[in-house]
Amino acid sequence: MTSLHDVSARGFASDNYAGVHPSVLDAVAAANGGHQVAYGEDDYTAALRERMSELFEAPVEVFPVFNGTGANVIALQSVTQRWESVVCAETAHINVDEGAAPESVGHLKLKTIPTVDGKLTPELLDAFPLRVGDEHAAPVGAVSITQTTELGTAYTVEEIRQLAAWAHAHELVLHVDGSRISNAVVSLGVSLAELITDTGVDILSFGGTKNGVLGAEAVVVLNPAAVHGIVFLRKQSMQLASKMRFLSAQLLALLSDDLYLTSAGHANAMAARLADAVADVVTLPRPTQANAVFAILPREVSLKLMETFRFYFWDETTGEVRWMCAWDTTEEDVDTFAAAIRDALAGA
Amino acid sequence: MTSLHDVSARGFASDNYAGVHPSVLDAVAAANGGHQVAYGEDDYTAALRERMSELFEAPVEVFPVFNGTGANVIALQSVTQRWESVVCAETAHINVDEGAAPESVGHLKLKTIPTVDGKLTPELLDAFPLRVGDEHAAPVGAVSITQTTELGTAYTVEEIRQLAAWAHAHELVLHVDGSRISNAVVSLGVSLAELITDTGVDILSFGGTKNGVLGAEAVVVLNPAAVHGIVFLRKQSMQLASKMRFLSAQLLALLSDDLYLTSAGHANAMAARLADAVADVVTLPRPTQANAVFAILPREVSLKLMETFRFYFWDETTGEVRWMCAWDTTEEDVDTFAAAIRDALAGA
Amino acid sequence: MTSLHDVSARGFASDNYAGVHPSVLDAVAAANGGHQVAYGEDDYTAALRERMSELFEAPVEVFPVFNGTGANVIALQSVTQRWESVVCAETAHINVDEGAAPESVGHLKLKTIPTVDGKLTPELLDAFPLRVGDEHAAPVGAVSITQTTELGTAYTVEEIRQLAAWAHAHELVLHVDGSRISNAVVSLGVSLAELITDTGVDILSFGGTKNGVLGAEAVVVLNPAAVHGIVFLRKQSMQLASKMRFLSAQLLALLSDDLYLTSAGHANAMAARLADAVADVVTLPRPTQANAVFAILPREVSLKLMETFRFYFWDETTGEVRWMCAWDTTEEDVDTFAAAIRDALAGA
Amino acid sequence: MTSLHDVSARGFASDNYAGVHPSVLDAVAAANGGHQVAYGEDDYTAALRERMSELFEAPVEVFPVFNGTGANVIALQSVTQRWESVVCAETAHINVDEGAAPESVGHLKLKTIPTVDGKLTPELLDAFPLRVGDEHAAPVGAVSITQTTELGTAYTVEEIRQLAAWAHAHELVLHVDGSRISNAVVSLGVSLAELITDTGVDILSFGGTKNGVLGAEAVVVLNPAAVHGIVFLRKQSMQLASKMRFLSAQLLALLSDDLYLTSAGHANAMAARLADAVADVVTLPRPTQANAVFAILPREVSLKLMETFRFYFWDETTGEVRWMCAWDTTEEDVDTFAAAIRDALAGA
Repeated sequence: MTSLHDVSARGFASDNYAGVHPSVLDAVAAANGGHQVAYGEDDYTAALRERMSELFEAPVEVFPVFNGTGANVIALQSVTQRWESVVCAETAHINVDEGAAPESVGHLKLKTIPTVDGKLTPELLDAFPLRVGDEHAAPVGAVSITQTTELGTAYTVEEIRQLAAWAHAHELVLHVDGSRISNAVVSLGVSLAELITDTGVDILSFGGTKNGVLGAEAVVVLNPAAVHGIVFLRKQSMQLASKMRFLSAQLLALLSDDLYLTSAGHANAMAARLADAVADVVTLPRPTQANAVFAILPREVSLKLMETFRFYFWDETTGEVRWMCAWDTTEEDVDTFAAAIRDALAGA
Repeated sequence: MTSLHDVSARGFASDNYAGVHPSVLDAVAAANGGHQVAYGEDDYTAALRERMSELFEAPVEVFPVFNGTGANVIALQSVTQRWESVVCAETAHINVDEGAAPESVGHLKLKTIPTVDGKLTPELLDAFPLRVGDEHAAPVGAVSITQTTELGTAYTVEEIRQLAAWAHAHELVLHVDGSRISNAVVSLGVSLAELITDTGVDILSFGGTKNGVLGAEAVVVLNPAAVHGIVFLRKQSMQLASKMRFLSAQLLALLSDDLYLTSAGHANAMAARLADAVADVVTLPRPTQANAVFAILPREVSLKLMETFRFYFWDETTGEVRWMCAWDTTEEDVDTFAAAIRDALAGA
Repeated sequence: MTSLHDVSARGFASDNYAGVHPSVLDAVAAANGGHQVAYGEDDYTAALRERMSELFEAPVEVFPVFNGTGANVIALQSVTQRWESVVCAETAHINVDEGAAPESVGHLKLKTIPTVDGKLTPELLDAFPLRVGDEHAAPVGAVSITQTTELGTAYTVEEIRQLAAWAHAHELVLHVDGSRISNAVVSLGVSLAELITDTGVDILSFGGTKNGVLGAEAVVVLNPAAVHGIVFLRKQSMQLASKMRFLSAQLLALLSDDLYLTSAGHANAMAARLADAVADVVTLPRPTQANAVFAILPREVSLKLMETFRFYFWDETTGEVRWMCAWDTTEEDVDTFAAAIRDALAGA
Repeated sequence: MTSLHDVSARGFASDNYAGVHPSVLDAVAAANGGHQVAYGEDDYTAALRERMSELFEAPVEVFPVFNGTGANVIALQSVTQRWESVVCAETAHINVDEGAAPESVGHLKLKTIPTVDGKLTPELLDAFPLRVGDEHAAPVGAVSITQTTELGTAYTVEEIRQLAAWAHAHELVLHVDGSRISNAVVSLGVSLAELITDTGVDILSFGGTKNGVLGAEAVVVLNPAAVHGIVFLRKQSMQLASKMRFLSAQLLALLSDDLYLTSAGHANAMAARLADAVADVVTLPRPTQANAVFAILPREVSLKLMETFRFYFWDETTGEVRWMCAWDTTEEDVDTFAAAIRDALAGA
């Protein structure tokens, strides 16, 4: 089969628009051939568990799944009782962009807290009614945060440590939606172990797809005592891949030769370059701490730009837009786009 | 990355143990590079819709998903009301091997009918209480059949036509779980259009994974009037791939150059070869109409064989085992296995 | 307000058609007046727990609910994990007459076993695949039986004891749907303690409504170690009454002065009288062990009778009908009906 | 049975603590005797439909249920698709006090808007992202408001009219949680028809329990075109009473001889009396428009008062408490309580 699309076209709409890193495709090919036991009892899934245990510096359990929503819903079900709820930021992906899967598939109520920067804090949680033991309320059973956040910010190691401590002090579990966890690791200059294991995170949705794999994420269990039934919940939630070796091989490739760091680091750097290139002409309402740049533009300028470069409004009422960089964004892409932004503004 | 497994080892445990056909991997590579709109608005998904419309000789709607359970649950939700149930054979995959996803994710009650050969018939359905309009009963809203069945049998064109007519006469929808639909098409010597479109099937779960793709299935809508909300249900059910171009490219490759026919036809032929090779020494309780061979062996013989060849008991009480052939099973594989069976029986 | 209906009209359609025993209405009135804490922290609920602990000769936990479906779904959720299933007879009320509430509200898969007389046995269970630990299967977590069964039969003490032993030997929980548990107690001539506590039942849905209360059932927990979260599950399942004192008062009245025995015993006796009165002219395909009589009549005779006496077909294909007696059925009611049956048959 | 509690004790904790109006008990007794068809095909349910059609001045459909959560969840499911969400005030009972039943039983996501006074407005809704047609978002399908609100305020006729117009202009349905709808009717001095029918409300949860019935609410359908499947949803949600005549009789009594107005009016008057009696010594942060009085007291004063009079903190962080009056609250009750409050404050 030949390509049906322009393989040189790239944009700033989403890191999901990017394709697959060549090393990941190579790994899929290497995992091919012959038969391997289905549903996870294969050599690649075993190797992935081993590699992750090295990186997290702990004997983690690893459950590859198809996508981020799947990882989140399974993780949250595994750490809650049927009648418990999950508290998260109002902007959390699980709350605004997962098609009500947490409620419909997970049968979980989300309780949300407004934040300035997409981050929960112990102070915000202190002010939130947990209603422990109150059957009228679906008491909170877990705290879920996103790293990096949906607003392009990164929790510091200390911030996560404090949230884990707060959660544990309240006998709650801390879940991290790490759809862009590698971007955070690079941005903060720490290791996965320092960011996740050492801070006390109980369970993590580890993201691969937005960082250059074809389609694979994993639930990573740091604290097995807080978790139950993931093997069953993954199947029940329709996230169990029969040919799991190929999901695991993708993640294994990402975690080999520091590819997760290189790819995420590159995306972060391109976002920084873009922010720098336009900071003097547009308002950047949020810090650029990962691979997302948020900007406020006159609406007609955005619409004009969108004729050539596809991207999305983040908040139509304020004119805020979001530009995402990916593992394959080039400096030239950024410079071309920045120039176009400046031109559009000049012409406005 | 290098291979971690023996790429020449093959067995008869499951068609899910097999890997990916090289043409499919090529197609994934061809779909790579550059950016494509995520979540289905890409060129490969559009091409897939076009190709399927050709093959089904009708303007079908196509919704790629991750796996067969996902396809089934989404399809069944899309053709039922919240309070309706689905009638299927007791042996149906949705009933016995989907981890209660239809009930838990789809919130659907399955009502089951015992069968001899895995096939529903109008006579069996006539004898089954539909309880239309009865709020105590979760009235039946859809009939679901599997083609080929879990027992390795294939519905004939006429049998499906009659089931569709029966369903429509009762104002019900006919769903086909086509996890191995290509094996049926080859086995019956008919086209997809003849088997599905012309018989009156309303909605189909089209299988790719068991027929040599990496991991992709699709819900195919033949009768849009009977269906609602699939776009939403797919997202809600956590089956919406962000980088959907790669799912679509896999299926497109499978449907190109008759690969779906060649691969399924080969698997079927290998099953026939295996059945022939042992028919004189073991009981084959079911006709071999696709890529599955069922056999009844003394338990100790099965256990002995399993030391070398991994396969599963189908029914431990009767000693029935199941042997699956795949797109990559070779004649030599079959002959070696058949010889081992004969040896094991002789030694028993 | 005056009565809008003929308060002297009675029939044989259902024990749900009957009204409320005067003692129960008196108890509701006695519980009225003044304020009582809502949601179960009232004096009547406390007294009910005490009274039930006396009758079950064990310190039971008691959770009043609105109806039998509510009791069953809450009980079954409380003894299973999210991914487990429940095995029951194919004819079980939870399977055929609860509008898919177990699946939709409880998110539970039911696995059903065909029976001759509505009763599960250890032998039937032995032959049923539990698929323990198999994530593809929604492994069985509980066994649910109905006492008396939907077919009017009663499990003996020994039969229940064996089922409990079987369940416990397989690390499963035994639930009894006791919608007509009082009819069983009377029929068998044993106490609640002998039938339920001593046999090893873990959790019981105790029925009131069909035995002359206005509308109240209760989940009774015999084995607290097997149960978790009922307080939360009851609220979540919308079965938590704000003015619970009135539910508890109804059940307390039923359990006072042996009313549960007198009422159920009377209904049983009327069924026996009816069966005796027509046994020589109609086929009674099932033993009359409680308050239900099953009979096979020519269809036109049934239709003729239904013009005067409302009752239901049990199985239209065989012509089987079901006649229910209630706490308020009189001997004259029975004799009149029996005479009408004989006349209709004579005229046929 | 004799009373187990002090029938003269009353307090200000909740209108759910009050008992049953004698006329309602009389109606239950009048509905007793003889047999009536179960599950709603009885004379009282028919009469209730007729009576409500008179009061709403429209041919409404009426579905009695056990409790308010049941009414709300059934109503909301009946006006939404499986993948839609419901927007409501952050303080809505469905969001904070229904044990996640909307999510768990209804499989519905709630999207919440913070408000000052518990009331949604077209302006608040205009600013809220409906995300129509966006499969990532669980698009909004219905707007739900509470009348009177959880904060003791009442929407005016004009406010409801505007919300209905807004909802319909956006092709959404307007649901009213009318747990205290009678208090609103009295407070506003309008009829049910003026408040609900004429304003364009599509579906109403009509409250009885908090207004002096034993335990009965009803889903009232004003706009049948917007609603589907309630008969099935009620059964599936475990809210179908077998002896429904008694639920209907309660509501019929409430709607006879203006009892709903008299009882709610009395409760409102007692709340006004209480507010008046303490307004000079405590802060009343919200207008008293129905039967709830909110007050801010020093915490130690509240705790002191609670030793004698049971009531609840509304917001522990601000010291706000809630006092509810009921149909049976007497002027003496109010005066005694007000005096105690003044004493406690003086002593503090």
